[in-house]
Amino acid sequence: MRETYTYDKSREAFARAMKVIPSGIYGHLGPAEGCYTPVEAFPFYSSKAEGPYVWDLDGNRFIDYMCAYGPNVLGYNDPDVDAAAAEQRALGDCTTLPSTKMVDFAELLVDTVASADWAFFAKNGGDVTTLAVMTARAYTHRKKIVFFKGYYHGVAPWTQKIDYAGVIPEDVMHNIYVNWNDLDELEAVFKKYKGEIAAVISQPYMHGNFMDNVLPADGFWKEVRRLCTENGTVLVVDDVRAGFRLDIAGSDHYFGFEADLICFCKALANGYNVSALCGKNFLKNTVSGMSYTGSYWLSAVPFAAGIACINKMKRIGAPQILIEKGTKLKEGLIATANKHGFDLRVTGVPSLFYLRIADDPTLMLHQEWIAECVKRGVFFTNHHNHFINAALTDADIAETLDIADEAFAVVKKRH
Amino acid sequence: MRETYTYDKSREAFARAMKVIPSGIYGHLGPAEGCYTPVEAFPFYSSKAEGPYVWDLDGNRFIDYMCAYGPNVLGYNDPDVDAAAAEQRALGDCTTLPSTKMVDFAELLVDTVASADWAFFAKNGGDVTTLAVMTARAYTHRKKIVFFKGYYHGVAPWTQKIDYAGVIPEDVMHNIYVNWNDLDELEAVFKKYKGEIAAVISQPYMHGNFMDNVLPADGFWKEVRRLCTENGTVLVVDDVRAGFRLDIAGSDHYFGFEADLICFCKALANGYNVSALCGKNFLKNTVSGMSYTGSYWLSAVPFAAGIACINKMKRIGAPQILIEKGTKLKEGLIATANKHGFDLRVTGVPSLFYLRIADDPTLMLHQEWIAECVKRGVFFTNHHNHFINAALTDADIAETLDIADEAFAVVKKRH
Repeated sequence: MRETYTYDKSREAFARAMKVIPSGIYGHLGPAEGCYTPVEAFPFYSSKAEGPYVWDLDGNRFIDYMCAYGPNVLGYNDPDVDAAAAEQRALGDCTTLPSTKMVDFAELLVDTVASADWAFFAKNGGDVTTLAVMTARAYTHRKKIVFFKGYYHGVAPWTQKIDYAGVIPEDVMHNIYVNWNDLDELEAVFKKYKGEIAAVISQPYMHGNFMDNVLPADGFWKEVRRLCTENGTVLVVDDVRAGFRLDIAGSDHYFGFEADLICFCKALANGYNVSALCGKNFLKNTVSGMSYTGSYWLSAVPFAAGIACINKMKRIGAPQILIEKGTKLKEGLIATANKHGFDLRVTGVPSLFYLRIADDPTLMLHQEWIAECVKRGVFFTNHHNHFINAALTDADIAETLDIADEAFAVVKKRH
Repeated sequence: MRETYTYDKSREAFARAMKVIPSGIYGHLGPAEGCYTPVEAFPFYSSKAEGPYVWDLDGNRFIDYMCAYGPNVLGYNDPDVDAAAAEQRALGDCTTLPSTKMVDFAELLVDTVASADWAFFAKNGGDVTTLAVMTARAYTHRKKIVFFKGYYHGVAPWTQKIDYAGVIPEDVMHNIYVNWNDLDELEAVFKKYKGEIAAVISQPYMHGNFMDNVLPADGFWKEVRRLCTENGTVLVVDDVRAGFRLDIAGSDHYFGFEADLICFCKALANGYNVSALCGKNFLKNTVSGMSYTGSYWLSAVPFAAGIACINKMKRIGAPQILIEKGTKLKEGLIATANKHGFDLRVTGVPSLFYLRIADDPTLMLHQEWIAECVKRGVFFTNHHNHFINAALTDADIAETLDIADEAFAVVKKRH
């Protein structure tokens, strides 16, 4: 049996943080909300990262299946991406004029992404989901936006729940929520709000938290596409999380349809800070007419990194590799669970898999198992999907299964 | 007389960009809107930057008074900031857990900024102005926000004008607009909307576009502070543009008052991508209770750069240096204009100066002069304030005045 990790230095640093940062570590990287990892198993701070690994402040090494919640797609500190970024940095990054790396990157995305006639760059996923909704409203002169329940499109007021702190009812009064894969409901909504729906916004499949992830039903996207087209509604795909892990040409392409607008962020530049809205020609003039920018949005280093990242993903066939590695891990995990009499559900596309031990509806059993994995060096999470990166080796997968095995044994013994 | 610059390569690159990017270069770095520089004098793309200079794609060198619209505060590619960033990059940047550099940076801001009891980090200025408004609404359970006319607080729907593309009336229905320095109007608004005003949001002084910049009148801020306190309204200072160019302790400190929330971005890390909301203890729990984050928000490299930038600004006394350099330039420019019989108005704090030739209310004369400056290597802008950086030398200022002199002569001769 392995020795389990301890996190003394992380705890000390967190105590310092609580004095000067609201909630110490906020958002999805924090112990309170983000990782949904049991807090006693959660390491809090990283000291370094390399390839598929992250080390915490106490020197514990983890095989990292969160990949910074997506940005790490080629492996941390990928030499090709870092070299391209360093070369650009020596010339200039955030200057009074953009670099032509911006043009090169837009051309590369237009060449790569099936539904992209143009690209617009920003910094957050939320910058581009917000621009997508504003573009749809400007183009259609309509107000209503259809969401699929379980969605996440960032933290801007328009996409928050009505009871979120700081959100006022006016922020979300034109939002309509329908169930994923429910075409009858969607069709009814289009009928009820005829001529009023500016956009349907959706992730390419339902990868929400605290629920098994759900792929689109047969024919679902084809019908959504048809309903949008017939109703003059803009179809927005939020590919911030899944983008380039399913298909280098976009997750809409993977599922056999074309979005009008598609949002990218996480896997775009292997961790360098950039997001992109891509879209169809008929919306280009609308976007051209909008005043939408930010202090660092046209910085050159992330464009250079993004070019290197996309080119390398294309060269090695990254999405296929990630799906293959994820499938190998998935099959191994299910078999390991079965050995101990557990029913482990692995849902979603394997490059972006979600885990749940189905034997316990309270999810506490699952949480116990996750904790035992994390404390032994496999960074899984509890109620959020995971991410595969291209630096993950067969040896890493074998070690993961070995640790998962030990963790199942510990949990089995306890119950 | 100097030869004037030509921009053939920039034009070619822009033609490529127009095919794949809406409006080619959008926002404040673009020729359409941003710089308000006459288009025929505008160089479009940079090839490199160093210290106080930017070079365009055609190899023309400019003494750059836009400083990437603020981020360049110490000089492009500052060796101390870049070394700290490179050291952190070798360890890790955007990983599954934050680095303790985040804690170090928050502690440094709390030590440095007078009104900061805590710090929250994001990426855009607009991320933190939005968080400030959401925090004020969450804390007060009120909806209304008071703006001063001429404001700019980012591109989110709540802060746009009602007629902007993509903005719906509900986005801005609780916004109240009052005139800068008009205490009677502000007091009347507080009376009319008693118990309804969540926040007053304001830049530290009026540095709007297309208008002479206006400092706060004597006693203005003291009265604003009193009205906010008496009415239970949160006072938000948007120091995104002016921050650290007036006072290392915050621009509220420069003008002798304390904000409840203060927003920083541009000069925070010399161009590395980070923004910060700082605030008072009574609002910390409210922020802790909000779910507000983004893909790259806890990346370590910008924190390392920010620490190096703030420490260097403190060590060299950057704001004082910038104001001194700006004052020298201002006095020289006014004298040069006078020599040619022009009345050049230089408004705002000299580290953040705004230029206008007052002899022509159409502003066309001013535009002609700006064009002649830019085409000779001084990157001024037309209807936006300018920025001073610490790498600017006396020789640069002398060369600037020499070019300004030549440009005045050209314009004088023409009229």
